Amino acid sequence: MKTQLLRIDCPDAKGLVYAVTGVLYRLDFNIISNHEFVDPATRHFFMRTVVAGSAPPEAVVHELRQVLPATATVRLAPASKRPIVVFATKEVHCLGDLLVRYIDDDLPTHISAVISNYADLEPLVQQFNIPFHHVSHHNRDRAAHEQAIIEVLDQYKPDYLVLAKYMRILTPQFVARYQQRIINIHHSFLPAFIGARPYHQAFERGVKIIGATAHIVTDDLDTGPIIAQGVLPVNHAHTAAGMAQAGRDLEKIVLAKALRLVLEERVFLHHNRTIVFE
Amino acid sequence: MKTQLLRIDCPDAKGLVYAVTGVLYRLDFNIISNHEFVDPATRHFFMRTVVAGSAPPEAVVHELRQVLPATATVRLAPASKRPIVVFATKEVHCLGDLLVRYIDDDLPTHISAVISNYADLEPLVQQFNIPFHHVSHHNRDRAAHEQAIIEVLDQYKPDYLVLAKYMRILTPQFVARYQQRIINIHHSFLPAFIGARPYHQAFERGVKIIGATAHIVTDDLDTGPIIAQGVLPVNHAHTAAGMAQAGRDLEKIVLAKALRLVLEERVFLHHNRTIVFE
Amino acid sequence: MKTQLLRIDCPDAKGLVYAVTGVLYRLDFNIISNHEFVDPATRHFFMRTVVAGSAPPEAVVHELRQVLPATATVRLAPASKRPIVVFATKEVHCLGDLLVRYIDDDLPTHISAVISNYADLEPLVQQFNIPFHHVSHHNRDRAAHEQAIIEVLDQYKPDYLVLAKYMRILTPQFVARYQQRIINIHHSFLPAFIGARPYHQAFERGVKIIGATAHIVTDDLDTGPIIAQGVLPVNHAHTAAGMAQAGRDLEKIVLAKALRLVLEERVFLHHNRTIVFE
Amino acid sequence: MKTQLLRIDCPDAKGLVYAVTGVLYRLDFNIISNHEFVDPATRHFFMRTVVAGSAPPEAVVHELRQVLPATATVRLAPASKRPIVVFATKEVHCLGDLLVRYIDDDLPTHISAVISNYADLEPLVQQFNIPFHHVSHHNRDRAAHEQAIIEVLDQYKPDYLVLAKYMRILTPQFVARYQQRIINIHHSFLPAFIGARPYHQAFERGVKIIGATAHIVTDDLDTGPIIAQGVLPVNHAHTAAGMAQAGRDLEKIVLAKALRLVLEERVFLHHNRTIVFE
Repeated sequence: MKTQLLRIDCPDAKGLVYAVTGVLYRLDFNIISNHEFVDPATRHFFMRTVVAGSAPPEAVVHELRQVLPATATVRLAPASKRPIVVFATKEVHCLGDLLVRYIDDDLPTHISAVISNYADLEPLVQQFNIPFHHVSHHNRDRAAHEQAIIEVLDQYKPDYLVLAKYMRILTPQFVARYQQRIINIHHSFLPAFIGARPYHQAFERGVKIIGATAHIVTDDLDTGPIIAQGVLPVNHAHTAAGMAQAGRDLEKIVLAKALRLVLEERVFLHHNRTIVFE
Repeated sequence: MKTQLLRIDCPDAKGLVYAVTGVLYRLDFNIISNHEFVDPATRHFFMRTVVAGSAPPEAVVHELRQVLPATATVRLAPASKRPIVVFATKEVHCLGDLLVRYIDDDLPTHISAVISNYADLEPLVQQFNIPFHHVSHHNRDRAAHEQAIIEVLDQYKPDYLVLAKYMRILTPQFVARYQQRIINIHHSFLPAFIGARPYHQAFERGVKIIGATAHIVTDDLDTGPIIAQGVLPVNHAHTAAGMAQAGRDLEKIVLAKALRLVLEERVFLHHNRTIVFE
Repeated sequence: MKTQLLRIDCPDAKGLVYAVTGVLYRLDFNIISNHEFVDPATRHFFMRTVVAGSAPPEAVVHELRQVLPATATVRLAPASKRPIVVFATKEVHCLGDLLVRYIDDDLPTHISAVISNYADLEPLVQQFNIPFHHVSHHNRDRAAHEQAIIEVLDQYKPDYLVLAKYMRILTPQFVARYQQRIINIHHSFLPAFIGARPYHQAFERGVKIIGATAHIVTDDLDTGPIIAQGVLPVNHAHTAAGMAQAGRDLEKIVLAKALRLVLEERVFLHHNRTIVFE
Repeated sequence: MKTQLLRIDCPDAKGLVYAVTGVLYRLDFNIISNHEFVDPATRHFFMRTVVAGSAPPEAVVHELRQVLPATATVRLAPASKRPIVVFATKEVHCLGDLLVRYIDDDLPTHISAVISNYADLEPLVQQFNIPFHHVSHHNRDRAAHEQAIIEVLDQYKPDYLVLAKYMRILTPQFVARYQQRIINIHHSFLPAFIGARPYHQAFERGVKIIGATAHIVTDDLDTGPIIAQGVLPVNHAHTAAGMAQAGRDLEKIVLAKALRLVLEERVFLHHNRTIVFE
């Protein structure tokens, strides 16, 4: 009996949990763990259930559709390693951390490739026997650069794109193509210090705590739905560069945490906010 | 339709959630929020559900008992203010914090009385128009002292006894009388620094983080099931007294957090560990 | 030999620590603890030293002025309880926390009075035998209201004004009158969510961590120099009201922390940032 | 003018800061940053000063010795990359993190070699072009095994040995040979859960926060002076294995933090406690 992951979201209605668990019961599935949430403002229902059973997934989904509202999103799939492509520019710490986690089998993912607009990180990535694609943005307009990236991505068909300190802005067209599938780490405690050089902004403002934010990329780079955040105390003795150094540990840990949540199917998107079943 | 709180715990079995939600559905209850957990080691099932409906609680519990294992614990009660009695000795911070929360209506509780083995805190408590009982332990053996306390408690019939820096050890007989109903704050990050003067122990050991632990009191004062813990960084410049001062904020916040969890029926006890549905 | 607190700030110059400690040595002062900092960007020097000795403070300051740059700020004073006036509106938690700390002798301060634009908190304050002044803003323009407040303050001559959830904006004239002497608690992780209803803003943005910020009040209410900040994790299940409730503990702890730092003379203001010697 | 690091520790005496800064002033050194601490219990003085100047270090130390107590420890050295050897067993996360930091130039160190009692990590280390020494403990008694390790170490003469989840106990003889130069990461919030399988112990005890502790190794593996600690919240849903997984991030961050503090000469050892100038 294989472990499978059931995700449902739909408008709330009376008896939903009863209806869903009834289907699972009749099909002889065992519930291993179960999270539900109803957003009180919009009366929308979210459910993530780990089940064990042997009925074919298509049959289960079909049965569930009979008892759920017509607009429900229903997915049942085996818990599996999801392929990702990591984007980086020149900074080592987030990419390096993901590579070590990968060989440590710490995340349910397969890193299919790394794409960068610079060649600096190529030796590191090759040490890990992962394809590295240097797609330079020099002498290319944004559309042409993204087209070149898309051609690389088409080879790998990743489930998620992970921006591990990738310092290029993406076009709305590119983001739309990989909707809800791009994860970014922003080196500030969003929504504070949106935009360029957030550690310099934090220093100028004299904050006593700095943060990092992992989020789903939507059109606007720094305002997408937040998946995870982390913070670290700083003081007057931290220069902007000192904050940036301290922030590196934060960034890599928060990005990895968000990626784990996404890969384990714990994140639902709802009206620019996330429901995260931890 | 009144909001009510349903608590169930029993050995796990296939279809439990289905069975319970079926009863709620048939009795026309609406599920407002729902937490379930199955302890993987012991296969024990825990459920806390906030429901709205008008069927009489006795009928609902009766119906639920039909579908649950015979050994199940089932309770359905309106969310309400639970009476407590607070125990203190001489320290102000935890008691004072509870008193301010009380007039601020911050916790779902009614503080029926305060009991202390010293008279020092009497003026403070009287300012808040709460009965203060000075039950001295002088010239009384432990049994006689506890008997005097029990006589006070019998006037109030509190649901919980809250030890807000009460510096007396309780006998197993007393603890047994109020089983799972005594909450204590211990001024260390248990199980480190069990026993007397934990801040001195922490200082001697040179720790860089101190903690506080709120727990259910069982026979052994410092080893009861943990409800909540908190921590605070310290450094070499903290003396034991400096750690104690810094720790006061921690103690009052952690005790209040644990008390809120208990009063909101979010805490289940299982084999010396707690399941806490936050 | 009384313990005294020496504070110096001036443009940096070679040999400053040598010069200052030389004066202290010649006047037979013992250094108990010592903090120095030179801001690398502006080359400004800050020093806070706890000393013990019997030479008269005026003589020491005179000697120090001989060896320091002409523009130096120098202050030597016994560590003492500083009088404050607390401002509140209707919320209990920050004011109540300060009152309990006051009777617990937890902060080096004397609370001379409480001023509020509503009468709601009067019974609480009177329980603590502290004068309560209800200075209503009804039927008064802002200038007249502040004039009435100033008249109350003139009775007490407090060193600091502590805004414990005081929900009125202060005029630049008022702020200028008590320059660098007004401490405010803002219920967000500044600079995020400046302005009204920050918890609603935080909820709308879907943040995973909320914060509170204690700062010195300058002209613009929410942009003054930050003294201390604190944070707390939240999740999708927190409504704006739930965040506000969770935030109350944060607000009172962060305000008390900042007030302690100010009262212990650990805070220097420099170009809209603070140097805090913890 | 090179930046140099001055470290002094000695019994406290009146005028020490004056005397030391006087020497620096006369030799035309500029103080860039300065930390002092006097342990109140033992009246011992600690000082770490970053200075810039061109006088030869030997001359400076000679001058300082004239003004300091005879038992003073005085060291002046250029801030430089210190060679280390990393010990590991089979776990990837701490070692991998150090390797990525190394190529990222994140720590002031040169990793001379990695020693392991298993061969599992050899491919990873070789990817980073760092010598890997597999020194098996099979068919060797403890003394013979350590002798083989010492022979490897003698090739590299490292300043520090970093135990990155090295799962072997060291003999007092070995520890004495590298006194105050061995840094270990212990996967618990010491002194809680000393000994084997701390995550299992933490799970059994039902703690709500787990920790990791980096410390200097003394005779007794888990009781050496603490350099840095970190914590992470857990709950009833964490199995011992789940705690261990969550703890991996903690362990690597805390170990790297402690190593940075040691390499930057910020750690003084005093009576089984550390003074850490952050």
